[in-house]
Amino acid sequence: MRKYRVFVEELHAGEFVISGSAFHHLVRVLRVRSETLVLLIDRAQGTCAHAHVSEIRETEATLLVGILEPAIGAEPLWILQGLAKGDKCDAIVRDATELGATTIRFVDTVRAVVRLEGERAMARSIRWQKIAEEAARQSGRQDVPQVDGPESWLDALASVPESLTRIVLWEQADEPLILALLPAIEQGKGVAFAIGPEGGLSEEEIEVAKRAGWIICSLGRAILRTETVAAAVLGAVRVLSGT
Amino acid sequence: MRKYRVFVEELHAGEFVISGSAFHHLVRVLRVRSETLVLLIDRAQGTCAHAHVSEIRETEATLLVGILEPAIGAEPLWILQGLAKGDKCDAIVRDATELGATTIRFVDTVRAVVRLEGERAMARSIRWQKIAEEAARQSGRQDVPQVDGPESWLDALASVPESLTRIVLWEQADEPLILALLPAIEQGKGVAFAIGPEGGLSEEEIEVAKRAGWIICSLGRAILRTETVAAAVLGAVRVLSGT
Repeated sequence: MRKYRVFVEELHAGEFVISGSAFHHLVRVLRVRSETLVLLIDRAQGTCAHAHVSEIRETEATLLVGILEPAIGAEPLWILQGLAKGDKCDAIVRDATELGATTIRFVDTVRAVVRLEGERAMARSIRWQKIAEEAARQSGRQDVPQVDGPESWLDALASVPESLTRIVLWEQADEPLILALLPAIEQGKGVAFAIGPEGGLSEEEIEVAKRAGWIICSLGRAILRTETVAAAVLGAVRVLSGT
Repeated sequence: MRKYRVFVEELHAGEFVISGSAFHHLVRVLRVRSETLVLLIDRAQGTCAHAHVSEIRETEATLLVGILEPAIGAEPLWILQGLAKGDKCDAIVRDATELGATTIRFVDTVRAVVRLEGERAMARSIRWQKIAEEAARQSGRQDVPQVDGPESWLDALASVPESLTRIVLWEQADEPLILALLPAIEQGKGVAFAIGPEGGLSEEEIEVAKRAGWIICSLGRAILRTETVAAAVLGAVRVLSGT
Protein backbone atom coordinates (compact mmCIF):
# COMPACT_ATOMS: atom_id res chain seq x y z
CA MET A 1 0.00 0.00 0.00
CA ARG A 2 1.33 3.39 -1.02
CA LYS A 3 1.41 6.03 1.65
CA TYR A 4 1.26 9.79 1.34
CA ARG A 5 3.72 11.93 3.24
CA VAL A 6 2.37 14.94 5.05
CA PHE A 7 4.56 17.28 7.07
CA VAL A 8 3.10 18.54 10.35
CA GLU A 9 4.17 20.43 13.45
CA GLU A 10 4.34 18.90 16.95
CA LEU A 11 3.30 15.40 15.99
CA HIS A 12 2.04 13.20 18.81
CA ALA A 13 0.34 9.83 19.11
CA GLY A 14 -3.43 9.51 19.57
CA GLU A 15 -5.96 12.05 18.30
CA PHE A 16 -4.23 14.69 16.23
CA VAL A 17 -5.90 17.68 14.57
CA ILE A 18 -4.43 19.27 11.46
CA SER A 19 -5.38 22.59 9.90
CA GLY A 20 -3.78 25.27 7.71
CA SER A 21 -1.41 24.19 4.96
CA ALA A 22 -1.16 20.55 6.11
CA PHE A 23 -4.97 20.29 5.99
CA HIS A 24 -4.99 22.00 2.62
CA HIS A 25 -2.41 19.55 1.26
CA LEU A 26 -4.12 16.51 2.71
CA VAL A 27 -7.67 17.31 1.69
CA ARG A 28 -7.43 19.62 -1.35
CA VAL A 29 -4.29 18.30 -3.07
CA LEU A 30 -4.13 14.66 -2.02
CA ARG A 31 -7.93 14.48 -1.73
CA VAL A 32 -7.76 11.87 0.98
CA ARG A 33 -10.97 10.66 2.58
CA SER A 34 -11.82 9.21 5.97
CA GLU A 35 -9.99 5.98 6.79
CA THR A 36 -7.09 6.74 4.43
CA LEU A 37 -3.68 5.77 5.83
CA VAL A 38 -1.04 8.52 5.65
CA LEU A 39 2.51 8.98 6.90
CA LEU A 40 2.82 12.05 9.13
CA ILE A 41 6.27 13.53 9.55
CA ASP A 42 7.19 16.03 12.23
CA ARG A 43 8.97 18.75 10.32
CA ALA A 44 11.21 19.83 13.20
CA GLN A 45 11.95 16.48 14.87
CA GLY A 46 11.99 14.24 11.79
CA THR A 47 9.93 11.69 13.74
CA CYS A 48 7.10 10.04 11.88
CA ALA A 49 4.02 7.93 12.42
CA HIS A 50 1.29 6.24 10.49
CA ALA A 51 -2.12 7.78 10.91
CA HIS A 52 -5.69 7.11 9.85
CA VAL A 53 -7.87 10.02 8.85
CA SER A 54 -10.86 9.78 11.19
CA GLU A 55 -12.84 12.94 10.43
CA ILE A 56 -12.66 15.70 7.83
CA ARG A 57 -14.39 19.01 8.61
CA GLU A 58 -14.48 22.38 6.82
CA THR A 59 -10.97 23.63 7.65
CA GLU A 60 -9.44 20.88 9.76
CA ALA A 61 -9.23 17.14 10.06
CA THR A 62 -8.75 14.72 12.93
CA LEU A 63 -6.36 11.81 12.52
CA LEU A 64 -5.65 8.85 14.73
CA VAL A 65 -1.87 8.65 15.03
CA GLY A 66 -0.01 5.43 15.84
CA ILE A 67 3.38 4.96 17.53
CA LEU A 68 5.95 7.64 16.74
CA GLU A 69 9.08 6.27 15.12
CA PRO A 70 12.48 7.91 15.35
CA ALA A 71 13.05 8.45 11.63
CA ILE A 72 11.71 7.46 8.24
CA GLY A 73 13.43 4.67 6.32
CA ALA A 74 15.25 6.61 3.65
CA GLU A 75 17.07 9.86 4.37
CA PRO A 76 14.99 12.86 3.39
CA LEU A 77 15.88 14.18 -0.05
CA TRP A 78 14.32 17.50 -0.97
CA ILE A 79 14.11 19.35 -4.25
CA LEU A 80 13.15 23.03 -4.27
CA GLN A 81 12.60 23.80 -7.92
CA GLY A 82 12.18 27.23 -9.50
CA LEU A 83 8.91 27.15 -11.42
CA ALA A 84 9.66 26.36 -15.08
CA LYS A 85 7.70 26.57 -18.32
CA GLY A 86 5.21 24.13 -19.82
CA ASP A 87 5.69 20.45 -19.19
CA LYS A 88 9.12 20.82 -17.64
CA CYS A 89 7.77 20.74 -14.09
CA ASP A 90 5.88 17.53 -14.86
CA ALA A 91 9.09 15.93 -16.13
CA ILE A 92 10.98 17.13 -13.06
CA VAL A 93 8.38 15.60 -10.71
CA ARG A 94 8.59 12.32 -12.63
CA ASP A 95 12.42 12.19 -12.63
CA ALA A 96 12.79 13.33 -9.02
CA THR A 97 10.23 10.80 -7.76
CA GLU A 98 11.89 7.99 -9.65
CA LEU A 99 15.31 8.99 -8.30
CA GLY A 100 14.17 9.05 -4.68
CA ALA A 101 13.14 12.61 -3.77
CA THR A 102 10.95 12.59 -0.66
CA THR A 103 9.72 16.19 -1.00
CA ILE A 104 9.41 18.38 -4.09
CA ARG A 105 8.45 22.04 -3.69
CA PHE A 106 8.04 24.49 -6.53
CA VAL A 107 9.21 28.01 -5.89
CA ASP A 108 8.43 31.46 -7.29
CA THR A 109 11.66 33.28 -8.08
CA VAL A 110 12.29 36.75 -9.50
CA ARG A 111 13.67 35.60 -12.86
CA ALA A 112 10.99 32.96 -13.48
CA VAL A 113 9.14 33.30 -16.78
CA VAL A 114 6.04 31.57 -15.38
CA ARG A 115 3.64 32.57 -12.60
CA LEU A 116 0.95 30.34 -11.18
CA GLU A 117 -1.74 31.58 -8.85
CA GLY A 118 -5.15 30.71 -7.43
CA GLU A 119 -7.13 28.03 -9.24
CA ARG A 120 -4.41 27.34 -11.79
CA ALA A 121 -1.82 26.84 -9.08
CA MET A 122 -4.16 24.44 -7.31
CA ALA A 123 -4.86 22.48 -10.50
CA ARG A 124 -1.15 22.13 -11.22
CA SER A 125 -0.44 21.09 -7.66
CA ILE A 126 -3.00 18.31 -7.94
CA ARG A 127 -1.57 17.29 -11.31
CA TRP A 128 1.98 17.13 -9.93
CA GLN A 129 0.89 15.01 -6.99
CA LYS A 130 -0.78 12.57 -9.42
CA ILE A 131 2.37 12.39 -11.52
CA ALA A 132 4.41 11.69 -8.37
CA GLU A 133 1.97 8.97 -7.40
CA GLU A 134 2.19 7.33 -10.81
CA ALA A 135 6.00 7.64 -10.95
CA ALA A 136 6.29 6.16 -7.44
CA ARG A 137 4.14 3.24 -8.51
CA GLN A 138 6.14 2.60 -11.68
CA SER A 139 9.47 2.74 -9.88
CA GLY A 140 8.28 0.39 -7.17
CA ARG A 141 8.56 2.94 -4.34
CA GLN A 142 6.51 2.28 -1.23
CA ASP A 143 5.95 5.97 -0.49
CA VAL A 144 4.93 8.99 -2.54
CA PRO A 145 6.87 12.25 -2.25
CA GLN A 146 4.99 15.31 -1.08
CA VAL A 147 4.72 17.81 -3.94
CA ASP A 148 3.90 21.40 -3.02
CA GLY A 149 3.91 24.97 -4.15
CA PRO A 150 4.51 27.26 -5.81
CA GLU A 151 5.51 29.30 -2.79
CA SER A 152 7.96 32.13 -2.18
CA TRP A 153 11.74 31.62 -2.15
CA LEU A 154 11.87 32.62 1.52
CA ASP A 155 9.07 30.27 2.57
CA ALA A 156 10.54 27.41 0.59
CA LEU A 157 14.00 27.86 2.12
CA ALA A 158 12.48 28.07 5.59
CA SER A 159 10.41 24.92 5.08
CA VAL A 160 13.48 22.67 4.91
CA PRO A 161 14.57 21.16 8.24
CA GLU A 162 17.97 22.50 9.33
CA SER A 163 19.13 18.96 10.05
CA LEU A 164 19.50 18.45 6.28
CA THR A 165 22.57 19.51 4.30
CA ARG A 166 21.00 22.37 2.35
CA ILE A 167 22.56 23.18 -1.01
CA VAL A 168 21.68 25.82 -3.60
CA LEU A 169 22.97 24.94 -7.08
CA TRP A 170 24.21 28.08 -8.77
CA GLU A 171 26.22 28.32 -11.98
CA GLN A 172 28.31 31.18 -10.58
CA ALA A 173 29.33 29.34 -7.42
CA ASP A 174 32.96 28.30 -6.87
CA GLU A 175 32.54 25.33 -4.56
CA PRO A 176 32.09 22.02 -6.39
CA LEU A 177 28.99 20.15 -5.24
CA ILE A 178 30.97 17.05 -4.26
CA LEU A 179 32.63 18.91 -1.35
CA ALA A 180 29.27 19.51 0.32
CA LEU A 181 27.54 16.32 -0.83
CA LEU A 182 30.07 13.65 0.11
CA PRO A 183 30.20 14.50 3.87
CA ALA A 184 26.38 14.59 3.96
CA ILE A 185 26.13 11.11 2.46
CA GLU A 186 28.95 9.70 4.58
CA GLN A 187 27.20 10.97 7.71
CA GLY A 188 23.85 9.62 6.55
CA LYS A 189 22.30 13.08 6.53
CA GLY A 190 19.39 14.10 4.34
CA VAL A 191 20.04 16.58 1.55
CA ALA A 192 18.02 19.44 0.08
CA PHE A 193 18.81 20.92 -3.33
CA ALA A 194 17.48 24.29 -4.47
CA ILE A 195 17.45 24.75 -8.25
CA GLY A 196 16.73 27.96 -10.14
CA PRO A 197 14.24 28.34 -13.01
CA GLU A 198 15.27 28.84 -16.69
CA GLY A 199 16.43 32.38 -15.94
CA GLY A 200 18.56 31.30 -12.98
CA LEU A 201 18.62 32.67 -9.45
CA SER A 202 19.35 36.32 -8.69
CA GLU A 203 22.29 37.42 -6.56
CA GLU A 204 19.84 38.61 -3.96
CA GLU A 205 18.17 35.18 -3.80
CA ILE A 206 21.62 33.65 -3.32
CA GLU A 207 22.39 36.11 -0.49
CA VAL A 208 19.10 35.28 1.23
CA ALA A 209 19.89 31.57 1.04
CA LYS A 210 23.42 32.08 2.39
CA ARG A 211 22.07 34.02 5.35
CA ALA A 212 19.63 31.16 6.02
CA GLY A 213 22.57 28.74 6.25
CA TRP A 214 22.46 27.20 2.77
CA ILE A 215 25.68 26.21 0.98
CA ILE A 216 26.08 27.56 -2.57
CA CYS A 217 27.57 24.97 -4.94
CA SER A 218 28.43 24.61 -8.59
CA LEU A 219 27.77 21.77 -11.00
CA GLY A 220 30.63 22.84 -13.28
CA ARG A 221 31.06 25.25 -16.12
CA ALA A 222 28.81 23.69 -18.74
CA ILE A 223 25.31 25.12 -18.64
CA LEU A 224 22.51 22.75 -17.68
CA ARG A 225 18.85 23.26 -18.49
CA THR A 226 16.82 23.63 -15.30
CA GLU A 227 14.93 20.40 -16.07
CA THR A 228 18.16 18.35 -16.17
CA VAL A 229 19.57 19.45 -12.81
CA ALA A 230 17.33 17.44 -10.46
CA ALA A 231 17.99 14.18 -12.34
CA ALA A 232 21.73 14.86 -12.38
CA VAL A 233 22.09 15.63 -8.67
CA LEU A 234 19.67 12.94 -7.50
CA GLY A 235 21.54 10.49 -9.76
CA ALA A 236 24.73 11.52 -7.99
CA VAL A 237 23.14 10.99 -4.56
CA ARG A 238 21.92 7.58 -5.62
CA VAL A 239 25.28 6.45 -6.96
CA LEU A 240 27.20 7.89 -3.97
CA SER A 241 24.81 6.19 -1.54
CA GLY A 242 25.89 2.92 -3.11
CA THR A 243 22.38 1.54 -3.20
CA MET B 1 33.91 27.06 -33.50
CA ARG B 2 32.22 23.79 -32.76
CA LYS B 3 34.04 20.68 -33.88
CA TYR B 4 32.68 17.30 -34.79
CA ARG B 5 34.28 14.19 -33.36
CA VAL B 6 34.96 11.33 -35.74
CA PHE B 7 36.56 8.09 -34.62
CA VAL B 8 39.10 6.54 -36.99
CA GLU B 9 41.70 3.77 -37.05
CA GLU B 10 45.47 4.35 -37.30
CA LEU B 11 45.36 8.12 -37.27
CA HIS B 12 48.47 9.89 -38.57
CA ALA B 13 49.42 13.45 -39.48
CA GLY B 14 49.38 14.69 -43.09
CA GLU B 15 47.07 13.29 -45.79
CA PHE B 16 44.66 10.82 -44.32
CA VAL B 17 42.01 8.84 -46.21
CA ILE B 18 38.84 7.67 -44.51
CA SER B 19 36.30 5.18 -45.83
CA GLY B 20 33.72 2.75 -44.44
CA SER B 21 31.75 3.74 -41.35
CA ALA B 22 33.89 6.82 -40.54
CA PHE B 23 33.29 8.13 -44.09
CA HIS B 24 29.61 7.31 -43.76
CA HIS B 25 29.38 9.21 -40.47
CA LEU B 26 31.34 12.20 -41.73
CA VAL B 27 29.62 12.65 -45.05
CA ARG B 28 26.13 11.11 -44.68
CA VAL B 29 25.32 11.88 -41.05
CA LEU B 30 27.35 15.01 -40.29
CA ARG B 31 27.10 16.15 -43.92
CA VAL B 32 30.42 17.92 -43.72
CA ARG B 33 31.79 19.55 -46.86
CA SER B 34 35.30 20.36 -48.05
CA GLU B 35 37.25 22.68 -45.75
CA THR B 36 35.22 21.72 -42.69
CA LEU B 37 37.31 21.38 -39.54
CA VAL B 38 36.79 18.12 -37.62
CA LEU B 39 38.38 16.43 -34.63
CA LEU B 40 39.70 12.96 -35.51
CA ILE B 41 40.22 10.53 -32.66
CA ASP B 42 42.22 7.33 -32.94
CA ARG B 43 39.90 4.74 -31.45
CA ALA B 44 42.67 2.46 -30.19
CA GLN B 45 45.30 5.00 -29.08
CA GLY B 46 43.02 7.79 -27.88
CA THR B 47 45.24 10.31 -29.67
CA CYS B 48 43.49 13.05 -31.58
CA ALA B 49 44.15 15.76 -34.14
CA HIS B 50 42.34 18.52 -35.93
CA ALA B 51 41.82 17.92 -39.61
CA HIS B 52 40.46 19.76 -42.62
CA VAL B 53 38.38 17.85 -45.12
CA SER B 54 40.21 18.36 -48.40
CA GLU B 55 38.32 16.12 -50.83
CA ILE B 56 35.13 14.09 -50.74
CA ARG B 57 34.71 11.28 -53.27
CA GLU B 58 32.07 8.56 -53.78
CA THR B 59 33.03 6.26 -50.89
CA GLU B 60 36.01 7.93 -49.27
CA ALA B 61 37.38 11.31 -48.28
CA THR B 62 40.83 12.79 -47.89
CA LEU B 63 41.61 14.93 -44.88
CA LEU B 64 44.64 17.01 -44.01
CA VAL B 65 45.53 16.10 -40.44
CA GLY B 66 47.45 18.41 -38.09
CA ILE B 67 49.72 17.52 -35.18
CA LEU B 68 48.63 14.49 -33.16
CA GLU B 69 47.95 15.27 -29.54
CA PRO B 70 48.23 12.74 -26.75
CA ALA B 71 44.63 12.96 -25.53
CA ILE B 72 41.48 14.99 -25.85
CA GLY B 73 40.65 17.55 -23.17
CA ALA B 74 37.91 15.76 -21.32
CA GLU B 75 38.02 12.05 -20.57
CA PRO B 76 35.91 10.07 -23.02
CA LEU B 77 32.43 9.38 -21.71
CA TRP B 78 30.39 6.93 -23.75
CA ILE B 79 26.73 6.04 -23.65
CA LEU B 80 25.52 2.88 -25.39
CA GLN B 81 21.75 3.15 -25.27
CA GLY B 82 19.24 0.45 -26.12
CA LEU B 83 16.92 1.89 -28.76
CA ALA B 84 13.81 3.26 -27.06
CA LYS B 85 10.38 4.38 -28.22
CA GLY B 86 9.26 7.69 -29.65
CA ASP B 87 10.99 10.85 -28.52
CA LYS B 88 12.86 9.17 -25.70
CA CYS B 89 16.03 8.80 -27.76
CA ASP B 90 15.91 12.51 -28.63
CA ALA B 91 15.66 13.38 -24.93
CA ILE B 92 18.52 11.02 -24.12
CA VAL B 93 20.78 12.63 -26.74
CA ARG B 94 19.93 16.07 -25.35
CA ASP B 95 20.55 15.12 -21.70
CA ALA B 96 23.70 13.12 -22.42
CA THR B 97 25.22 15.90 -24.54
CA GLU B 98 24.49 18.48 -21.89
CA LEU B 99 26.00 16.28 -19.19
CA GLY B 100 29.22 15.71 -21.09
CA ALA B 101 28.93 12.47 -23.09
CA THR B 102 31.53 12.40 -25.86
CA THR B 103 30.01 9.47 -27.78
CA ILE B 104 26.42 8.23 -27.88
CA ARG B 105 25.63 5.01 -29.74
CA PHE B 106 22.19 3.49 -30.06
CA VAL B 107 21.97 -0.27 -29.91
CA ASP B 108 19.57 -2.94 -31.13
CA THR B 109 18.80 -5.35 -28.34
CA VAL B 110 16.59 -8.43 -28.21
CA ARG B 111 13.92 -6.97 -25.91
CA ALA B 112 13.67 -3.62 -27.68
CA VAL B 113 10.15 -2.65 -28.76
CA VAL B 114 11.49 -0.49 -31.60
CA ARG B 115 13.46 -1.38 -34.72
CA LEU B 116 15.03 1.11 -37.08
CA GLU B 117 16.47 0.16 -40.44
CA GLY B 118 17.54 1.62 -43.76
CA GLU B 119 16.29 5.09 -44.62
CA ARG B 120 14.47 5.55 -41.33
CA ALA B 121 17.59 4.68 -39.35
CA MET B 122 19.58 7.16 -41.42
CA ALA B 123 17.01 9.92 -40.92
CA ARG B 124 16.99 9.35 -37.17
CA SER B 125 20.76 9.31 -37.04
CA ILE B 126 20.90 12.70 -38.76
CA ARG B 127 18.22 14.02 -36.44
CA TRP B 128 20.10 12.84 -33.32
CA GLN B 129 23.30 14.46 -34.53
CA LYS B 130 21.45 17.76 -35.00
CA ILE B 131 19.98 17.52 -31.50
CA ALA B 132 23.48 16.87 -30.12
CA GLU B 133 24.80 19.86 -32.01
CA GLU B 134 22.07 22.12 -30.65
CA ALA B 135 22.43 20.80 -27.09
CA ALA B 136 26.21 21.27 -27.26
CA ARG B 137 25.72 24.86 -28.39
CA GLN B 138 23.20 25.61 -25.63
CA SER B 139 25.36 24.14 -22.91
CA GLY B 140 28.42 26.03 -24.11
CA ARG B 141 30.40 22.91 -25.07
CA GLN B 142 33.21 23.41 -27.56
CA ASP B 143 32.78 19.97 -29.09
CA VAL B 144 29.84 17.90 -30.29
CA PRO B 145 29.51 14.24 -29.27
CA GLN B 146 29.46 11.66 -32.01
CA VAL B 147 26.01 10.05 -32.22
CA ASP B 148 25.75 6.73 -34.04
CA GLY B 149 23.67 3.66 -34.63
CA PRO B 150 21.54 1.77 -34.19
CA GLU B 151 23.98 -1.10 -34.39
CA SER B 152 24.13 -4.59 -32.87
CA TRP B 153 24.88 -5.18 -29.20
CA LEU B 154 28.09 -7.02 -30.13
CA ASP B 155 29.32 -4.28 -32.46
CA ALA B 156 28.48 -1.56 -29.96
CA LEU B 157 30.33 -3.32 -27.13
CA ALA B 158 33.33 -3.89 -29.41
CA SER B 159 33.39 -0.24 -30.52
CA VAL B 160 34.35 1.02 -27.05
CA PRO B 161 38.11 1.36 -26.43
CA GLU B 162 39.31 -1.13 -23.79
CA SER B 163 41.16 1.69 -22.01
CA LEU B 164 37.78 2.90 -20.69
CA THR B 165 36.09 1.52 -17.60
CA ARG B 166 33.20 -0.26 -19.30
CA ILE B 167 30.04 -0.67 -17.25
CA VAL B 168 26.70 -2.30 -18.12
CA LEU B 169 23.86 -1.04 -15.93
CA TRP B 170 21.54 -3.92 -15.10
CA GLU B 171 18.78 -3.96 -12.53
CA GLN B 172 19.59 -7.56 -11.54
CA ALA B 173 23.28 -6.85 -10.85
CA ASP B 174 24.66 -7.04 -7.30
CA GLU B 175 27.62 -4.67 -7.52
CA PRO B 176 26.74 -1.03 -6.76
CA LEU B 177 27.88 1.30 -9.52
CA ILE B 178 30.01 3.41 -7.16
CA LEU B 179 32.48 0.53 -6.67
CA ALA B 180 33.38 0.55 -10.37
CA LEU B 181 32.91 4.25 -11.00
CA LEU B 182 34.97 5.81 -8.21
CA PRO B 183 38.29 4.12 -9.13
CA ALA B 184 37.77 5.10 -12.79
CA ILE B 185 37.29 8.76 -11.88
CA GLU B 186 40.15 8.77 -9.36
CA GLN B 187 42.47 7.36 -12.02
CA GLY B 188 41.24 9.83 -14.63
CA LYS B 189 39.99 7.06 -16.88
CA GLY B 190 37.17 7.43 -19.38
CA VAL B 191 33.94 5.60 -18.70
CA ALA B 192 31.42 3.84 -20.94
CA PHE B 193 27.89 3.03 -19.77
CA ALA B 194 25.66 0.53 -21.55
CA ILE B 195 21.94 0.98 -20.83
CA GLY B 196 19.13 -1.37 -21.86
CA PRO B 197 15.91 -0.36 -23.63
CA GLU B 198 12.44 -0.26 -21.97
CA GLY B 199 12.33 -4.05 -21.84
CA GLY B 200 15.78 -4.33 -20.23
CA LEU B 201 18.75 -6.45 -21.28
CA SER B 202 18.55 -10.21 -21.61
CA GLU B 203 20.71 -12.57 -19.57
CA GLU B 204 22.46 -13.57 -22.78
CA GLU B 205 23.32 -9.95 -23.57
CA ILE B 206 24.75 -9.61 -20.06
CA GLU B 207 26.83 -12.78 -20.55
CA VAL B 208 28.20 -11.48 -23.85
CA ALA B 209 29.19 -8.19 -22.19
CA LYS B 210 30.88 -10.00 -19.29
CA ARG B 211 32.91 -12.09 -21.69
CA ALA B 212 33.98 -8.90 -23.48
CA GLY B 213 35.34 -7.52 -20.19
CA TRP B 214 32.46 -5.27 -19.15
CA ILE B 215 31.55 -4.84 -15.47
CA ILE B 216 27.88 -5.39 -14.60
CA CYS B 217 26.60 -2.85 -12.06
CA SER B 218 23.37 -1.92 -10.33
CA LEU B 219 21.79 1.48 -9.74
CA GLY B 220 19.78 0.21 -6.78
CA ARG B 221 16.46 -1.46 -6.27
CA ALA B 222 14.08 1.24 -7.48
CA ILE B 223 13.21 0.84 -11.14
CA LEU B 224 14.37 3.61 -13.47
CA ARG B 225 12.88 4.35 -16.86
CA THR B 226 15.48 3.84 -19.59
CA GLU B 227 15.39 7.56 -20.45
CA THR B 228 16.37 8.58 -16.90
CA VAL B 229 19.45 6.37 -16.58
CA ALA B 230 21.90 8.33 -18.76
CA ALA B 231 21.15 11.62 -16.95
CA ALA B 232 21.49 9.94 -13.56
CA VAL B 233 24.84 8.26 -14.24
CA LEU B 234 26.33 11.18 -16.17
CA GLY B 235 25.20 13.47 -13.33
CA ALA B 236 27.06 11.19 -10.92
CA VAL B 237 30.21 11.33 -13.09
CA ARG B 238 29.99 15.09 -13.22
CA VAL B 239 29.57 15.50 -9.47
CA LEU B 240 32.28 12.93 -8.67
CA SER B 241 34.68 14.63 -11.08
CA GLY B 242 34.30 17.75 -8.95
CA THR B 243 34.03 20.07 -11.94
